[in-house]
This record gives sequence, structure tokens and C-alpha cells, in this order.
Amino acid sequence: MNNYFEILKNDSDSSARTGRINSSRGIIETPVFMPVGTKASVKAVLKENLDEMGCMIILSNLYHIYLSPGIEIIKKAGGIHKFSSWSKNILTDSGGFQVFSLSDIRKIRDEGVEFKSIIDGSKHFFTPEKVIKMQLEIGSDIMMVLDECSIFDADERVIAEAARRTLKWARQSIEAYNMFKNNDDSKIFGIVQGGFNKNLRKYCAQSVSEMNFDGIALGGLSVGESREATIEMIGHTSQFVDREKPLYIMGLGDPVGILNGIGFGVDMFDCVLPTRISRNGSAFTKYGKINIKNKKYSEDFSPIEADCNCYSCKNYSKAYIKHLHKNKEIVSSILLSIHNINFLFELIRNARYAIAENNFIKFKNDFINQYES
Amino acid sequence: MNNYFEILKNDSDSSARTGRINSSRGIIETPVFMPVGTKASVKAVLKENLDEMGCMIILSNLYHIYLSPGIEIIKKAGGIHKFSSWSKNILTDSGGFQVFSLSDIRKIRDEGVEFKSIIDGSKHFFTPEKVIKMQLEIGSDIMMVLDECSIFDADERVIAEAARRTLKWARQSIEAYNMFKNNDDSKIFGIVQGGFNKNLRKYCAQSVSEMNFDGIALGGLSVGESREATIEMIGHTSQFVDREKPLYIMGLGDPVGILNGIGFGVDMFDCVLPTRISRNGSAFTKYGKINIKNKKYSEDFSPIEADCNCYSCKNYSKAYIKHLHKNKEIVSSILLSIHNINFLFELIRNARYAIAENNFIKFKNDFINQYES
Repeated sequence: MNNYFEILKNDSDSSARTGRINSSRGIIETPVFMPVGTKASVKAVLKENLDEMGCMIILSNLYHIYLSPGIEIIKKAGGIHKFSSWSKNILTDSGGFQVFSLSDIRKIRDEGVEFKSIIDGSKHFFTPEKVIKMQLEIGSDIMMVLDECSIFDADERVIAEAARRTLKWARQSIEAYNMFKNNDDSKIFGIVQGGFNKNLRKYCAQSVSEMNFDGIALGGLSVGESREATIEMIGHTSQFVDREKPLYIMGLGDPVGILNGIGFGVDMFDCVLPTRISRNGSAFTKYGKINIKNKKYSEDFSPIEADCNCYSCKNYSKAYIKHLHKNKEIVSSILLSIHNINFLFELIRNARYAIAENNFIKFKNDFINQYES
Repeated sequence: MNNYFEILKNDSDSSARTGRINSSRGIIETPVFMPVGTKASVKAVLKENLDEMGCMIILSNLYHIYLSPGIEIIKKAGGIHKFSSWSKNILTDSGGFQVFSLSDIRKIRDEGVEFKSIIDGSKHFFTPEKVIKMQLEIGSDIMMVLDECSIFDADERVIAEAARRTLKWARQSIEAYNMFKNNDDSKIFGIVQGGFNKNLRKYCAQSVSEMNFDGIALGGLSVGESREATIEMIGHTSQFVDREKPLYIMGLGDPVGILNGIGFGVDMFDCVLPTRISRNGSAFTKYGKINIKNKKYSEDFSPIEADCNCYSCKNYSKAYIKHLHKNKEIVSSILLSIHNINFLFELIRNARYAIAENNFIKFKNDFINQYES
């Protein structure tokens, strides 16, 4: 392997590890949580806030930015970094999951996927090659291959067909990548599908590992199944991937899920959760999620978490944020989003320290016990 | 007079002047624009953004914070500054205008005004004394007296009655202020009403000037009349107020209105305009207001104003802000609000320099010609 990904420390009692991704847009320490900026903007959060929290990578969705503003505009702007004024890393999702989850009308065949725009109903066609080409054109730092996702209780035949197609597309994606790339700054990650069939997952994990990807992602999880089933499948699949490459679990970002994933050696996480729950008034705390709408916070002039180092907790009380949320003030979404993103950053930072000290299992168990108490 | 308000420079060719309000919460250079934080939060703008722009005073509305979160909660928080974590000046409006503009059911009599809450329809009663007492309790830096506002084409008898009552309440307010105040940090401003009757405005201006207020406000303007009528009435009324006190025109904050007001010696302005138009995609520029929704900005990668020193213009393009606005991303409101507030701050800063150089009339005319071209 090249030195794109370095493992710094393996935990003695689990598969957890710390590492770093050596990107030209700044080193990413792993494990890492990537805030989601679906449309090239993390909802309600300015880049200064992300910088202050030490954010080195965000995620954007090719599906959304393809539809609006469109690839041509981003190319004319000089790429997605210049367009969005975010100079650190951007991972772009291929659109596979969005086609699966957002488009009511889609036709998947071996050539690619046809879908209707959620904006205006217009028809579009994504192929594995086109998806890689577009991600290269906008200057993505980590590109995901086009994949086919299935619902968690899909028919075995459907799952097998989706897995087969995803592997076929993965090979085509690598070829397209080698054909179109201008430099080595844009990395490409393969995606492991296979539903909840363990043999199929194993086969897909091994097949994707044998291809020349820079990283490996687990897709098709957190799609409606129980949390236990997700965790179990992460644990199962992680045994069969190339452990020299960064491992990314797509769409998982609750505190307990993150710690379980880290325990299985997952290096990268993303989720809309921390920003989405903010708009609903929710905040992570070490003692579980709270909702600021709760009446008891009306006269609670302490911060969301007394020992939290985020901007919101250093400056504002629960009573004030509750007042803002109740009165539909945008600032409440800003403050809660900052806290919730920082909470996951801090959780992972502490997990890294615990791994470094061979103390990860205790750290994980203590956190989960407190969080779920 | 005490040294609360100092006039630094009178323009040689107009009534414009520069000055300073020496408040314990930081010096306010005048003329000044006060961003509106109706509910103790300037919409979509964090205090860091306001600090960076040099904001020394914001406005909050007693009517709104009385209804939610309520005076008791703010008192328990230790006052409105501690509650909102804004340590600089806060001017609080008395609620007179909100009762007039928001409440469909209200009864005004000499004792005070009864109104129904816009939140839950519950009945409330404001008296001049109660309004002052509440503003003292929450620690307002500049309190406004309770006044009665009339629509611009109201019956002469209604206007005269409102003016008479407003003067009566002004005297009661001063008495309440002297009775309840603990220190001199909270200042009290009187309000001149009188509709669009010049004699009545003159009488009210002189009467309010004779009372022991720390500043004088012009109320009941910008309530539906033509812009010319507003400006004319400011010019007329400003001749009859005590010029040793800061003069505040309530609710006026468009760039042209501000410059005309400054020309008549107005020292303080407030308006929801810069934040409200932001949510609709509009931005002030030296060449007039633009709307980011305009198709031509889709591929315009320049900032809203090339030479603007605001955070938004230093970092983001019109194309990106248009993209965010189109996709209903909260960040577009943040960026436009920052630009629009900064635009008014910068306009007034430049007006101050022009006054200092006896160049205000030329500055005003040049700006208006360019802005309206």
C-alpha cells in the first residue's frame, strides 16, 4: 500500500485502531466523524464553526448537487471546494443510496440506474462511469462508487442481484477512475453490499478488498433493520475486508453505533443525525439525548453540558436555546447543530485517546452505560 | 445635560452630526443602526458575527419577550444580557407599537392598553408604569415609554387623542422611572407622536423635549405612508426637539431613509429590514437592492459586493448563496443577514466620516444617485 492511510495504533483488546488519512487537503485523524453537507453546506453551520471544532472532512451528495446547482456550475466555479469555500476534505456519495431512498420511480439495470429528479420529475441516468467522471470533475477528495442498495428485508434474489451488480459496477468504476483521473488527489472507495446475508457480505467484502480501492465502505446498513442487526453485520463483514485500507460505515452516526463500529475497526462515519435532531430541538449529552422543548429547561440557566467545550455551551444556556427553539429562531438550529457535531467529534477524540492507552473497551462500555442509563 | 450623549461634530451644511452615547455597556458612536433582535436574538446571526461588525447595540421588543419567555424567566436569568449572552447595549421597545400593529383586539384607555397575546389569545394589560418597571427589571440599557401609535390616515380626533395620551403616559413613565430605578445605567427615551399633523407633531416634540428624558424618539412614522411623507415629517419634527439629546427614529432602516434621517440630525435607527429581506434572498448593494434568486447569479462567482468587507463577501460567491437559498439552506439566511447588517453599518460609518469632513450632503446625494440608478 501507499502511505495514503497509516494505522497508528491497534487496540490490544478489540479491532479498534487509530490512524490517519494523508490527504492533500489536510490530514484526517481516524476514527473520524464526517458532518453531512448534502448540498455542499452543513445545515445551519458556518465553516468557521466547523474549523473551530477541528473538522477536516465533510460529506456531500452527488445526487443532490448534480440536480442543483448542477455539475456544470460547480465545474465553472473551479470545483466543489471553490464553489462552497470549504478548503478541507470533501467525500462525495455516489448517489446510489439517494436513488434508492428518494426516488419513487427508478429503473436499475446492468448499464446503470434511471431515476426521476425529486425537484422537477425530470428523468436522469447514472452509470458507474458517469458517476466517477462527475466526482472527478467537481474535485471530490474521496469518491464513492455507484452501488445498489436494498431494503433490509428484501428478497434474497433481489439482494444477490444487487450485490452482483454492485461488484460489476465497482470494477467498471475502477476502470473509469484510471481512465479519467488527472492526479492522485481524488481517492476512490468501493462499497460492500450484500444485505443481511452473511455469506454474501463476506463474498462482497473479499471481492471489494481485492480491487484497487483506496478505502472500503459498508453500504446498505442502517436502512430500517434493528440496531443489533446493524452492529452484528458490521462485526461480521469487518472480518473480511482488507484491514490495510480505511473502513467507512455509511450513514451511521449515533454515539453508541459509532463506538460499536470503532470496536470493529471502522475508521470513518457520517450521518445527518447531529444536524437533523438539532432542528427538532434535540441535543446529545453524556447521559443520553435530551430535548430542549422539555418544560424543565425553561428556567435552566446552565449550558447543555457543563463541561462541554463547544461554542454553544461556552456561551448559552438551555433556557435561552429553549426560548429560541420555541420561537422558531434560526439561531437555535445553529447552536444545537454546533453542540451535536462537537459532541460526536469529542466522543471520537476520546475514543482515540482510549485506543492509544489500550483502554478502549472500558471507555466504550462506560460511555454506553452512562449514555443509556 | 450630563455627559451621556456628546455631540462630536455638526455638519456645516445640514443638521447631520456625529456623537457618542456613553453607556456603561460600551460606547455607541452615532449615528448608529441597531439590528433588531425581537426575541432577544438577531435572526440568523450569532453574536460573534455582530461583534465582528462592530455592533454596539441591538434592539429587543418588550412585547415579545414579555409573552415568551416572560419577564420572570429573564429576571431569574439575571437580566436580558445574561439571558441572551449579549453583553453590549440593548434598547427595548415598550410594546406600544406591537400592540398597535400585531394585536387585532386591543382596548386603549387612559389607564393603559389591554391586548390579546398573539401566542395564545390570553388577555394582558400594559400600563406606562408597568412597562417601565419591567424594562428596569430585565436590565434594559435604553427603555422606551409606552406610547399610542395611529395608522397614517387616521381620523384627526383619533390622532390628537393618541398624542394627548402618549404625553400623559410619558409624564407617568418619568415618574415611574424615578421611583423604581436603582442606578443610572438604564436610560429612558420619550416618544413623539402626533400622526401627520404638523402642529401636533411640533407640540409633542416640544412637550417631550421639556421632560427629563435621556433621548427622544420619533414614533408613528413608517406606518404605511409614502416615503416622502415620512422624510418630510422627520424634517419637520426634528426642528422642535431638544437637540442636546440623541434623536431616534423608530422602525426606519432602508439606506436612503437612513441618510435622509441623518441629514435631519437623527442619531439612531432600527429596522427589521436587513434581516427580513435576507430570508427572502435580497441583499443591499451600492447600486440598489438585488435578489439572489435572479437567474443571472447562477454562474456569478463574485461576491455580493466585490469591495465589501463583510464575512459573507470575503468568503462566498453569489452563485453559492443563490444555490443555498434555492435549496432552503439556513446558511443562506445567515450569510445574507450578515451582509445586509454590515452594509448599513458601513453606510453609517461612511456617513460619519463625511460629516467629520463637512462632506455629508455630497456623500448622501452621491450614494442615493448611485443606489437609485
